[in-house]
Amino acid sequence: MAQHIVGPEIERLIQLLARLPGLGPRSARRAALALLKKKETLLEPLGKAVADAAAAVKVCPVCGNVDTQSPCTICRDAGRDPAILVVVEDVSDLWALERAAATRGRYHVLGGILSPLDGIGPDDLNIASLVGRVREGSIAEVILAMNATVEGQTTAHYITDQLSGSRARVTRLAHGVPVGGELDYLDDGTLSAAMKSRTPF
Amino acid sequence: MAQHIVGPEIERLIQLLARLPGLGPRSARRAALALLKKKETLLEPLGKAVADAAAAVKVCPVCGNVDTQSPCTICRDAGRDPAILVVVEDVSDLWALERAAATRGRYHVLGGILSPLDGIGPDDLNIASLVGRVREGSIAEVILAMNATVEGQTTAHYITDQLSGSRARVTRLAHGVPVGGELDYLDDGTLSAAMKSRTPF
Repeated sequence: MAQHIVGPEIERLIQLLARLPGLGPRSARRAALALLKKKETLLEPLGKAVADAAAAVKVCPVCGNVDTQSPCTICRDAGRDPAILVVVEDVSDLWALERAAATRGRYHVLGGILSPLDGIGPDDLNIASLVGRVREGSIAEVILAMNATVEGQTTAHYITDQLSGSRARVTRLAHGVPVGGELDYLDDGTLSAAMKSRTPF
Repeated sequence: MAQHIVGPEIERLIQLLARLPGLGPRSARRAALALLKKKETLLEPLGKAVADAAAAVKVCPVCGNVDTQSPCTICRDAGRDPAILVVVEDVSDLWALERAAATRGRYHVLGGILSPLDGIGPDDLNIASLVGRVREGSIAEVILAMNATVEGQTTAHYITDQLSGSRARVTRLAHGVPVGGELDYLDDGTLSAAMKSRTPF
């Protein structure tokens, strides 16, 4: 706050909270105030949780996931099918697929998406390591689980090119009507895709 | 996450972030991931900021504001008019009035609002200390700056009763059309109040 009516420690806390995604200046102030009012039950535990997480967090050298062990829990899980590799843009997509229990395969996190406008090229993403994993030969299917955006599909095409010549089958997520979705609210592209990929009833 | 694909330290960070106002489970996961990805520039500084704030935060014994010094910056500020006392429900309201530079007076933070349904009575709020401050006699005007809600106005009435007999003048914030507001979008109560309190042009 411009008026400096709070101490520098509180000011600094508000500034850092405002840098979290989903929190603007106003909600950062609200969050800081909630923390300050609940010092014992929220502020101090959060301080400890942040310090613990900072000490424990590791990026998995195999797949690019974030976890507290290295390699990550999923890469170490012997119950996972080593023949299936799901390629995602970001760790948040990996978490989403895990919440849905959508696959028993392992993952490869690109760490972003090809975006010439933002200056993000193939060398900025974990594509070389993906090609390396697939070349090793034990992977039968690479599932491209990029977002259904222009950039996501461009990246998927680029990866497909890079993987040509490997024995792995390359697939992508189906496009269609979201479960629970109403046709009237869907865009034309989704409806066309759902119609094209219709399945026997 | 139910699947325990992240370590307990990350899980705990997500849980605590989800308790902040404005963050649900999904945005808490996004915030945690943003923190984990920016360990040096965001996660570690936030840990330090939280610890510093926890060590520094104090509730002002005079007015109920939160700050890092006691009494708070506003209560210590000799440039403030000691004859004006602005009564607010919460510290966030104090911050809002300060951002607007709406007053040169000092504050009294009630710490809530009378709400029989939630079991919040006069003894749960800083009303006795308010009456004490006003009884001391140096205060000429008490400005009731409660929210324009039923509970806020009930609380304002209660406080007015408690202050009857003191020499201080008790006023409240004006009701009317918000600056920049369009009549067509305002509720009937606001329009009626604005009409009743019309001023010469």
